[in-house]
Amino acid sequence: MRLVQFCHRGGEVGVRVGVEQAGGQGVIDLKAFDPSMPSTMREFLEMGEKGMDCAKRALSSGQHVVAQTDVRLLSPVTGPEKVVCVGMNYKDHCLEQNAPIPKEPIIFSKFPSTITGPYDDIILPAESQEVDWEVELAFVIGQKGKHIKEEEALSYVAGFTVANDVSARDWQMKRNGKQWLLGKTFDTFCPLGPALVTTSALKDVHNLGIRCLVNGAVVQDSNTNQMIFQTEKLIAWVSQFVTLCPGDVFLTGTPPGVGVFRNPPVYLKIKSG
Amino acid sequence: MRLVQFCHRGGEVGVRVGVEQAGGQGVIDLKAFDPSMPSTMREFLEMGEKGMDCAKRALSSGQHVVAQTDVRLLSPVTGPEKVVCVGMNYKDHCLEQNAPIPKEPIIFSKFPSTITGPYDDIILPAESQEVDWEVELAFVIGQKGKHIKEEEALSYVAGFTVANDVSARDWQMKRNGKQWLLGKTFDTFCPLGPALVTTSALKDVHNLGIRCLVNGAVVQDSNTNQMIFQTEKLIAWVSQFVTLCPGDVFLTGTPPGVGVFRNPPVYLKIKSG
Repeated sequence: MRLVQFCHRGGEVGVRVGVEQAGGQGVIDLKAFDPSMPSTMREFLEMGEKGMDCAKRALSSGQHVVAQTDVRLLSPVTGPEKVVCVGMNYKDHCLEQNAPIPKEPIIFSKFPSTITGPYDDIILPAESQEVDWEVELAFVIGQKGKHIKEEEALSYVAGFTVANDVSARDWQMKRNGKQWLLGKTFDTFCPLGPALVTTSALKDVHNLGIRCLVNGAVVQDSNTNQMIFQTEKLIAWVSQFVTLCPGDVFLTGTPPGVGVFRNPPVYLKIKSG
Repeated sequence: MRLVQFCHRGGEVGVRVGVEQAGGQGVIDLKAFDPSMPSTMREFLEMGEKGMDCAKRALSSGQHVVAQTDVRLLSPVTGPEKVVCVGMNYKDHCLEQNAPIPKEPIIFSKFPSTITGPYDDIILPAESQEVDWEVELAFVIGQKGKHIKEEEALSYVAGFTVANDVSARDWQMKRNGKQWLLGKTFDTFCPLGPALVTTSALKDVHNLGIRCLVNGAVVQDSNTNQMIFQTEKLIAWVSQFVTLCPGDVFLTGTPPGVGVFRNPPVYLKIKSG
């Protein structure tokens, strides 16, 4: 299944959880199908199997479909407790910066206020002149857990989506005592979505093409088979430290092609027109 | 006022927002006083003036008092969007480690899952052998804002409380690519409270004694007049990057006396008995 959060265009009902029909044939409004369903993905995920079963029934029903043109897609999760990020997690990205392959995952974070919709603008802050892109495979936790074993880790994942770990390189690399947080956490610095693709709908999440386009030009083009620490390992690692809970978002690191390591470096600019 | 979150001991009603009466004479249950009031501090703060006015009326009423012995105090805020932390923010703490006084605040974060009650145990993780204390003045945001001016910053603060920025030095200083997050973010690594003291109830928040005791012995003993970047500056600084919102918690840095800079270093141990 492809789960989304959306608003009805021109409607007044606020955020809804939806299930996308195949082939862009509209989105089923889950709360319209079953009024006992919650309005946000985080609450939906907190329901566990009960919510997922309802989403499956809603999809089978073919009822309460909102036409694609009436749907404004939001990020599939908003307001998670955590946005967990991984640095230096693609072999080819380490190579482009002549950095050694890490022996352990490098974990940092963005505040949840960075999350913005998949088709929304990134707001370029006046405080940075070096805003860069980082396309990433993201996943979302569906079940609470601590000290999760690698063998069981995938069962804690609700699904996968796409994120951009937008990064102000000046703040990340040169200021704030070299703690990355500030450079990573300007408002809107985490476009997320469009859909949360449930784990069972993916054949092999660690063998997917991953690309980033800027103004129509491909700037990153790799494969998730280049990931150093895969989903299961990341969950096991991070859950040594913190209790993971439904809605928590993981950004799993970026492949090569970011702007800062180009010669000369290239950064995002204000959209003209 | 002294605002708290609490549970009724042996009761079934869950989390409540309360107002402490002077002299430890019990806590007024705000929702019992006015059933339209929310159950959590974050929701209460989102109400703004309306909530604060209700709390004042509740305190004046002297009604719906829960005896101190029937109160189990929780942290005054749970589940904030952000826990914003400041490193190296006491002059005397910089001196103890021969570090230069920072020219800009150094900002990092803990996940909200670190927050635990003021009288709850810190869980020592098996993954660290170097867990250290850091008592800190904390404040909580009461009003949404971005690009807040220093002159107006205090009006964005709901109140002040006490935190401990518990830190696993091995993970903070030697691993995770020197990104501090993991060492700072084990579950229970942010005891917070007991009370959120409203700003108007404090004469000068930047001239307060601040102490930490371990097993009854004073290990940190300084004054908030040693802070390099004060409350107003921290709010102005951080709100350049992120929109602050009600419930956001700031930890403002620790004075000297932490375990890691002692000779030999001293760390927390499992409580015996």
